[in-house]
Amino acid sequence: MPASPHSPLIDVHTHVVPKNFPTSPSTANQRWPCLHLHDTRATLRIGDKPFRELDSRSWDIAARRESMAREGVSAQVLSPMPELLSYWFALDDALTLGHHVNGVIAEMVAQGGGHFHGLGMVPLQEPARAARELARLQADGLCGVEIGSNIDGVVLGDARFFEFYAEAERLGVALFVHALHPVGAERLHAFPDLIPYAAFPLDTGLAAVSLIRAGVLERFPKLRIAFSHGGGAVAPLVHRLHQGWRLSQGFNGQLPQPPHHYAAKFFYDSLVYDRGYLKYLVEQFAPSQVFAGTDYPYAIEQTGLRAFLRDVTPSAESALFVDTARRFLGLQPIS
Amino acid sequence: MPASPHSPLIDVHTHVVPKNFPTSPSTANQRWPCLHLHDTRATLRIGDKPFRELDSRSWDIAARRESMAREGVSAQVLSPMPELLSYWFALDDALTLGHHVNGVIAEMVAQGGGHFHGLGMVPLQEPARAARELARLQADGLCGVEIGSNIDGVVLGDARFFEFYAEAERLGVALFVHALHPVGAERLHAFPDLIPYAAFPLDTGLAAVSLIRAGVLERFPKLRIAFSHGGGAVAPLVHRLHQGWRLSQGFNGQLPQPPHHYAAKFFYDSLVYDRGYLKYLVEQFAPSQVFAGTDYPYAIEQTGLRAFLRDVTPSAESALFVDTARRFLGLQPIS
Repeated sequence: MPASPHSPLIDVHTHVVPKNFPTSPSTANQRWPCLHLHDTRATLRIGDKPFRELDSRSWDIAARRESMAREGVSAQVLSPMPELLSYWFALDDALTLGHHVNGVIAEMVAQGGGHFHGLGMVPLQEPARAARELARLQADGLCGVEIGSNIDGVVLGDARFFEFYAEAERLGVALFVHALHPVGAERLHAFPDLIPYAAFPLDTGLAAVSLIRAGVLERFPKLRIAFSHGGGAVAPLVHRLHQGWRLSQGFNGQLPQPPHHYAAKFFYDSLVYDRGYLKYLVEQFAPSQVFAGTDYPYAIEQTGLRAFLRDVTPSAESALFVDTARRFLGLQPIS
Repeated sequence: MPASPHSPLIDVHTHVVPKNFPTSPSTANQRWPCLHLHDTRATLRIGDKPFRELDSRSWDIAARRESMAREGVSAQVLSPMPELLSYWFALDDALTLGHHVNGVIAEMVAQGGGHFHGLGMVPLQEPARAARELARLQADGLCGVEIGSNIDGVVLGDARFFEFYAEAERLGVALFVHALHPVGAERLHAFPDLIPYAAFPLDTGLAAVSLIRAGVLERFPKLRIAFSHGGGAVAPLVHRLHQGWRLSQGFNGQLPQPPHHYAAKFFYDSLVYDRGYLKYLVEQFAPSQVFAGTDYPYAIEQTGLRAFLRDVTPSAESALFVDTARRFLGLQPIS
């Protein structure tokens, strides 16, 4: 049944920046964030460099509710602005910032009258510690974690992260992979705007195939992992990886099922900016695994979400609008 | 009209390795190729390391004609095995190897009774010299050049290559971009097989969007450029790049048309290993710009090409089978 103008719609890909930051435990941290407020607007500085202009939608649930009412979004999933993820910090700094950001998001969820769900952050530069943080984060009222598409240049399929995935699976914590410090950035000095526009989806695609190749869903079959930007470059990569799997007898027996099997168990947001490509993802690449996401409140946000999604998948609209998001987040089905 | 079993079919993506190599002009070249023959098989060594096992299909047109008869392929476009492209050599070494490889391919074309067309190689580490090589290559009977998806780590949109594109456009030389030494390889130590399976399509996609972003087809509108592996990751990248173009007023006026405009003027081969994704490319992403390609004679080759292509685009099968290839190569239409 097609969604009515007032049918539920969950935007899983929205970001938060806290209005205030604690001071850094380490005096030497040159990349500690700080917000300089001017009225309802603000400049986020990373160390002594301006990083992004923001407004109150980044931290104020009333401002967000106004946007949501205008766009017909019934709930948002809040996650940290990826540059806050702090994998490049000493552990104490990363924990201090992470606990603060997680607390701010948990508070927004608690104050939001059921219209917000929260994803937090953990210090994956120390995977064992990141794993131990998950129970605390869950107790705070967050249902998952946003993780970078690489951790300081290490692909997500690397075995050092398995203990983290094991704990996320055990606790039922959802993982949302977001592009961050992507592969290829070092080649794009002449076109820095290609870093977010082109290298982000490359890195997300590489994250996905490295997880497939490493057999992460084979080891942790109940783990729920989603990818921003529709998985970025994932689809053409998985098709080619399948040919490799076929030719190598499943990478010499390391991967029992073909890559498509695992790709179809991942979740993906709808943030692909093209209805034809979204239709390809929804109907062919990963049926019933795509949920809505916009990158609110940044400039690159997919505005007009309802119009963008409408009729992409008429027979399964409630999956795209709400059911898949709830399944990814581990929320109860709406009865 | 659907193609009959005997209708023409041009495979644009096939590779050649010469049976013999000259000696390196430079005694210090540690990456000079050499073929060690044993009956109809051979080991290609790069310097003192075995690089790939080959058989006579790499150099023998009679062996190729047998494969073509079996697969129903009427013509092959021959291009160098990408590792021969030699951008990492001193110019003299690159020219010596390039002239030899181009000569071998030109000879196969000349001996092939109209069943082969040839793409050569030029030393793009020195773009001015590469440009000057094009006339010679064309005089030898080659109709285009295979170029790497990056040149020693420099993206193809870099302005240093514009003089080369200008000359390729002026002479009507076709450019076939093939993945080579891709971005991300340095992150894949744990999974070296992901370099060809996943990083290749990443690099090809990055090559395409860097050419779009740099306005190469705006500057050189008659230039004919094709991308291997269906353009790799190109489609999701271009959709996101479009959003960036829109938000930045055409990258501050640097790019007059939207990215899709240029993406739809590029050519792409069909080597995507998935009929649904191929259908998406052919019907939506780049109508009438996709031609057949297999990676013959390597293990990752798309075998059963006719079956793979059949009915992907029933209303425009002759475009996919032959017409688009001829247009890309600059051959006369079949009357």
